[in-house]
Amino acid sequence: MIIVLKPEATESQIKHIVSKVKSLGLKPMISRGVERTIIGVIGEEDVLRVQPMEVFPGVEKVMPILAPYKLVSREFKPTDTVVTVDGVRIGGKRLVVMAGPCAVENYETLLSVARSTKKAGAAILRGGAFKPRTSPYSFQGLGEEGLKFLAEVKKRTGQPVITELMDLRDLELMERHADIIQIGARNMQNFDLLKEVGRSKKPVLLKRGMAATIKEWLLSAEYILQNGNFNVILCERGIRTFETETRFTLDMNAVPLIKSLSHLPIVVDPSHGTGRWGLVPSLAKAAVAAGADGLIIEVHPKPEEALSDGPQSMLPEKFARLMVDLKRVAKAVGREL
Amino acid sequence: MIIVLKPEATESQIKHIVSKVKSLGLKPMISRGVERTIIGVIGEEDVLRVQPMEVFPGVEKVMPILAPYKLVSREFKPTDTVVTVDGVRIGGKRLVVMAGPCAVENYETLLSVARSTKKAGAAILRGGAFKPRTSPYSFQGLGEEGLKFLAEVKKRTGQPVITELMDLRDLELMERHADIIQIGARNMQNFDLLKEVGRSKKPVLLKRGMAATIKEWLLSAEYILQNGNFNVILCERGIRTFETETRFTLDMNAVPLIKSLSHLPIVVDPSHGTGRWGLVPSLAKAAVAAGADGLIIEVHPKPEEALSDGPQSMLPEKFARLMVDLKRVAKAVGREL
Amino acid sequence: MIIVLKPEATESQIKHIVSKVKSLGLKPMISRGVERTIIGVIGEEDVLRVQPMEVFPGVEKVMPILAPYKLVSREFKPTDTVVTVDGVRIGGKRLVVMAGPCAVENYETLLSVARSTKKAGAAILRGGAFKPRTSPYSFQGLGEEGLKFLAEVKKRTGQPVITELMDLRDLELMERHADIIQIGARNMQNFDLLKEVGRSKKPVLLKRGMAATIKEWLLSAEYILQNGNFNVILCERGIRTFETETRFTLDMNAVPLIKSLSHLPIVVDPSHGTGRWGLVPSLAKAAVAAGADGLIIEVHPKPEEALSDGPQSMLPEKFARLMVDLKRVAKAVGREL
Amino acid sequence: MIIVLKPEATESQIKHIVSKVKSLGLKPMISRGVERTIIGVIGEEDVLRVQPMEVFPGVEKVMPILAPYKLVSREFKPTDTVVTVDGVRIGGKRLVVMAGPCAVENYETLLSVARSTKKAGAAILRGGAFKPRTSPYSFQGLGEEGLKFLAEVKKRTGQPVITELMDLRDLELMERHADIIQIGARNMQNFDLLKEVGRSKKPVLLKRGMAATIKEWLLSAEYILQNGNFNVILCERGIRTFETETRFTLDMNAVPLIKSLSHLPIVVDPSHGTGRWGLVPSLAKAAVAAGADGLIIEVHPKPEEALSDGPQSMLPEKFARLMVDLKRVAKAVGREL
Repeated sequence: MIIVLKPEATESQIKHIVSKVKSLGLKPMISRGVERTIIGVIGEEDVLRVQPMEVFPGVEKVMPILAPYKLVSREFKPTDTVVTVDGVRIGGKRLVVMAGPCAVENYETLLSVARSTKKAGAAILRGGAFKPRTSPYSFQGLGEEGLKFLAEVKKRTGQPVITELMDLRDLELMERHADIIQIGARNMQNFDLLKEVGRSKKPVLLKRGMAATIKEWLLSAEYILQNGNFNVILCERGIRTFETETRFTLDMNAVPLIKSLSHLPIVVDPSHGTGRWGLVPSLAKAAVAAGADGLIIEVHPKPEEALSDGPQSMLPEKFARLMVDLKRVAKAVGREL
Repeated sequence: MIIVLKPEATESQIKHIVSKVKSLGLKPMISRGVERTIIGVIGEEDVLRVQPMEVFPGVEKVMPILAPYKLVSREFKPTDTVVTVDGVRIGGKRLVVMAGPCAVENYETLLSVARSTKKAGAAILRGGAFKPRTSPYSFQGLGEEGLKFLAEVKKRTGQPVITELMDLRDLELMERHADIIQIGARNMQNFDLLKEVGRSKKPVLLKRGMAATIKEWLLSAEYILQNGNFNVILCERGIRTFETETRFTLDMNAVPLIKSLSHLPIVVDPSHGTGRWGLVPSLAKAAVAAGADGLIIEVHPKPEEALSDGPQSMLPEKFARLMVDLKRVAKAVGREL
Repeated sequence: MIIVLKPEATESQIKHIVSKVKSLGLKPMISRGVERTIIGVIGEEDVLRVQPMEVFPGVEKVMPILAPYKLVSREFKPTDTVVTVDGVRIGGKRLVVMAGPCAVENYETLLSVARSTKKAGAAILRGGAFKPRTSPYSFQGLGEEGLKFLAEVKKRTGQPVITELMDLRDLELMERHADIIQIGARNMQNFDLLKEVGRSKKPVLLKRGMAATIKEWLLSAEYILQNGNFNVILCERGIRTFETETRFTLDMNAVPLIKSLSHLPIVVDPSHGTGRWGLVPSLAKAAVAAGADGLIIEVHPKPEEALSDGPQSMLPEKFARLMVDLKRVAKAVGREL
Repeated sequence: MIIVLKPEATESQIKHIVSKVKSLGLKPMISRGVERTIIGVIGEEDVLRVQPMEVFPGVEKVMPILAPYKLVSREFKPTDTVVTVDGVRIGGKRLVVMAGPCAVENYETLLSVARSTKKAGAAILRGGAFKPRTSPYSFQGLGEEGLKFLAEVKKRTGQPVITELMDLRDLELMERHADIIQIGARNMQNFDLLKEVGRSKKPVLLKRGMAATIKEWLLSAEYILQNGNFNVILCERGIRTFETETRFTLDMNAVPLIKSLSHLPIVVDPSHGTGRWGLVPSLAKAAVAAGADGLIIEVHPKPEEALSDGPQSMLPEKFARLMVDLKRVAKAVGREL
C-alpha cells in the first residue's frame, strides 16, 4: 500500500502515520520526492486495508497495490477451474450451453423446451421458479411447484437443472431439486445469501450485478469460496449504461479480463445482455469467439404467451439454428460444442 | 398503451394483435398514419403490461402511457405522507437529521456519538449492526450485540434508532430493537426482503440502489406498500456513474423529482453520496435547499479507528457546526430544523 | 407523435393543443381512456418534433413514434451500403482490417508497420497526424508532416490511408493526403466539422462518442449524409461506463443493432474499446463473430517508445497471428478476410 | 509515480525498467515487498507520464502520484480566481446569475427577456447564436445575426453577454460581439477550439462534457490557461447516467470538489442539468447552498414557441420569484446576490 501525503503534511503528522503502520506489524518506507512525500508499506496489505489511513491528518490519498480478492484469483490458483455437474464439465475445452424458459410456467411447456434444446445440443436446462421482478404486479414464479417441474423434467431428459435462489429460506428446497444454484444480478451483493451458498455443496452460478465492477463481482465470488464452496461459475449478463436501445450493455471485455484475473469459468447471458431475441445470435457467437466457457440463453416455444421476458426469448427452431452456427465458431477458436 | 407497428405489418398481423387485445377485455383503437399504423389500447393498462406485445409479429415497439407504480404515486395520494416514529415526524415542515456511526463498534463510542449528535439537534440515531461489506475480509458488524447496544443507548438518550436489515431471518430481532428498519442500496431489489418488511409494522427507510432508476426505486417501494406497510421513507444515497473522484454521484435531481411523483418523504445521505467527509457539509446544505425532508449523516469521534467508512465520517464537532449552518438554510427555504 | 395529457387537463387546454396541431397542418386524434386522454397526431412527425409540445399546459409527456434520423436508416435504404476506397470495399462480404500506429511518429516506423500489417492482410493503413489528447502536455501529433509521411508510405505499399481530422481548417490538406477521413469520438458532436466533411468527396469514418447513444450517433451520421456525402463508415470504439479495469466498455450490442437500424457499414476498434493490447485479440474475434464489417487496430513495433497509446498497441508479430485466427472466425460466420 | 511489478517479474526486467527511468533523468527506488516489488520514481512526474511504462515487460500497473493538471490547480494558485467582465465579478462573494433564452430567435424576444431578467437581478445575458443540435433537422441558430442582436440588446440594458462558440472560424466575430465565450459540453474536448480561446483575451466559460470526469474537465481548462488565458469559469451542467427521467444528472458533488481542487470559479446550469423547468428552482437553490459562484438559467417568455429547449425554459415571472428565493439561500450561506 502506498500512502501519499499532502504537500503541507507536517513532520509530526508523518510520525503519527508511521507509528500507526508500525503498530500494525507493518514496515513503513518513507520516500521524499520533489512535490510529495510518500510512505510505502511492506507486509500483509490486508491488515492495512481495514484501517482507514485516508482519514489521518496529512494524508492525500491511499493506493492499494494488490487486488482485494485472493481465492478467486489466478495468482492463487493458476490453472483453470472446471466445475462438474452430473458429468457436464463447465470450464473445459467443450462449451456448455444452458437453455430454457425465463420462468417455469407449466410442466408441458418446460418439457417441450427441454426436449428441443437438448436435441439442439444444450447440456443444461434453465428455468426460474422464484422470479425477481421489478414490479410487484408481475408474475412472481410458481415457487416450489416450479422446482418440482424442473426435477420431473430432469428425470425425463436427463439434463442437469439450473434455477435461481432468491430467499435463503429456500436453500434446502433448492438443494433437493436443482443441480446448479443461480444467484441473480440483483442479489450479487446479498452477502448473507452468498455466505449460505458458500456453505452449500451445490455449484453456484454467480451473475454480475448490473452496476458491479469486475472487482466487486470477484469479491462477491470470494464470499462463496471463502465459505468453502469452490464450484463457482461466473456469468456476465450485461451492465447498466446510458444506452437505452438495449436493455443492458453486454460487457464483452469482461470475458478475457476474467480469464486473466481468475481461474473460475465464465459464461455469457446474451438474452439479458441485450433484452432482444433478434440480437441474441450475434452476441452468442461473439461470446464464444471472445473465449467464454458457455452460454445461458432463454428459449420459449410461444414468446407471445411467456409470463416473463418474452421479448428476449428465442423460438426453439431459431435456437437450434444458432447452435449449428455456434459449433462452427467454437471450432474456429479451438473449442468444441 | 400504444402499440406501434412496423411499416411492413400485414393486415392479418394487425387482426391477430387486435383480437389479443380484445380477448384481454381491452378496447383497441387503430390509427393509420403516413408512415406507421398504431394501435391505442383503452382500459386497464396493467392487464396488458404483463402481456409481451413486443413479440407479436408486426410490432415495432410498445409504449406504456402510465407509470407502472400506483400506491406510491402522488396521483394515488396527493397529500404528503408524514411518517411518525416515537413522536418524530418525517415529511413535515421540520427537517429530521439522523446521525451516528456507520457501524456500531462498541457501547461507549455509540453512546458518546448519540449524546453529541442529539445535543447538536439530530432527532434519530443511526448505526449498523449488520454490515453489507463488499469484501468478505472487512468487518461484518457486531450483529445482535450491536442491536442491543442501540437499544441500550436509546434508553439513555431517548433518540429513536434506525439500523439496516440484511437477512430476513433477523427481522423479528430487528422489530424488537429498532424503530426504523433500513433497507440498504444493495438490497433495494431483494424482493423477498421487501415483501417481509411490507408485512412489518415498523417504518422502513428504503435506500436507492446504486444503479436503480427513479422508476425502479418507486417500484421497490411499491412492494412494501402493496404488502400493507405505508410508512416508507425514501433515501437518495448516490448512484454509480463514470466519475471516480467521488465514491458515488449524489443525484440531487431526485429530490424534487420524487416530490412531484410520490407522496412519500425523501431524505438524503451525503456521506455515501460523496464518500468524503470534506464534501458532506456542502451536499447536506444543498439537499436541504433542494427540498429534502431530512438527512442521514455518518458521525464518528475517531474516524482513524472506525471499522467502516472512516473516510466519509464527520467529527462530532464538525457535525455540530454543520447543524448550525443547516438551520439557516432550512429557514431560507421555509423549513425548520 | 403521441401527446399524453395530465389527468387534470381541462377541455380548454385540450382545445389549445388541438388547435396548435391543426395550425401545423397535422391531424389530431383524441382518445379518452380510463386514466388519461391522449392525442395522436397524424402527419409529418418532423413538423411537430421542432415544436416543444411538452410545455403546453395540460401535457404530461410527448412520445415520438418514428426514429429521428432518415437518410442513414435501413427504412430509407434497405440494402447495405458498400464504401469503396481505392478498390477496397468496406461493407461487403470481405472484412476490412485497418491497422497502424496510434500516432505517426516518424517515417521509418510508419513504413515498417505498414509493410508488416499489409503482409498480414490489413487492407488499410491507419495513423494519426493530428492527435486529440486529454492533456495539453501530451504529444499532439506531427501535423502536416505526419500527413506527408502517410502519403509517402502509401506510395510504397499501396495501402489506402485513414487519419483523423480535428480542425476544419485542415480539411483541404486532409483531402490531398488521406483516403478516409476519421472523425474521432470527441468530435462526434462537433457539428460544424460534420457539415464540412459532409460536403467533402472523401469517405468518412465516424467514431461513436464515448457518451453517445446509438440514436445520437446515427443523427451525427445524418449530418454528413444530409450534406451530400453518403460514404460513411460507423466505428464502435467503446463507451464510458462505471467500469475502470478497462479504458472503455466496448458495446458489442451495437454491431447487430446498427445492422438492423442502418444501411451503413460498421467497424469495431478493439484497441480503444479495451485500452489493453492483451484483450484486443479476444474482442477482435468477437467483433467479427458479431457481424462487424471490419476492424481498426493499433499496431506498433516498439510500444515502449510509442508517443501515444502504447498500452493498447499490439506488436506486429502478434497482429499477424491474430489475423490468422480472424480468418478462421470470419469463415465460420460466412465472411472472408 | 509508482511502478508495480508482476509477481513473476525477472531481475533483467527490473534492470530494464530501472535503466529506462534513469535515462529520463529520474531516480528509481526499488522496494521489495512480500507479494510485489515496486519501483518508486522520484523527480518530475511529467517526464514519465508521456512514457508508456505499462508496456514494459514485467510491469503490472503504473500509478501516478500527482494530478495531471497544474495551472488550474489550487496547489499552483491557492487563492480564488475572480473573473471580471465589464465590472461584474465572477468568483467573489456576490453570486452571478446569467439568464436568457437558449437560442436567440429575434430581437424583440431577446430584449424583453434581457429587461425582465435584469430587473430580477441577473447580471449577465445568455443566448445562443450558433446552436449545437443533435439533429440536423433542428433549428441551428441565427448565426451572425444572432450575435448582432445580442450586441444591440447589450447597448440597451448594459448587461454583458455570453454566447457559445462552436466553430473556430467564428472566433473573431465572437470577440467583437460577446463578453464571455462559452465552450459547450460537446466541444469540451475540441482541443483546437480550446487552444484558440486560450489565445483570446475574452473570458471563457467551459462547460463540463457530459461524459467527462472532473480530471478531464480540469485538463481541458488547462489547455486554455496553458495558452495564456487565465480568465476561465467552469460550468457544471449535468452528466450522462443511466437515469432517463431527467435529461442529465446534475453532479452537485462537483461544486465543492472543484472548489478544493482548483482556484477557478464554478457556476451551475440547472436548466440543462435537469432538462425540466419544474426542477430548475430546487436545483438552483441547491447549487447556491453547495457553494457555487453563480448560475446560468434559461428563460423564455413563450416556451411554447421556443425554437430550442422549450421544456427547460422558465417563464420570466417564475424566474423573478426564484431570484427572491435565491437571495435568501445565498444569505444563509454567507454569500450575496
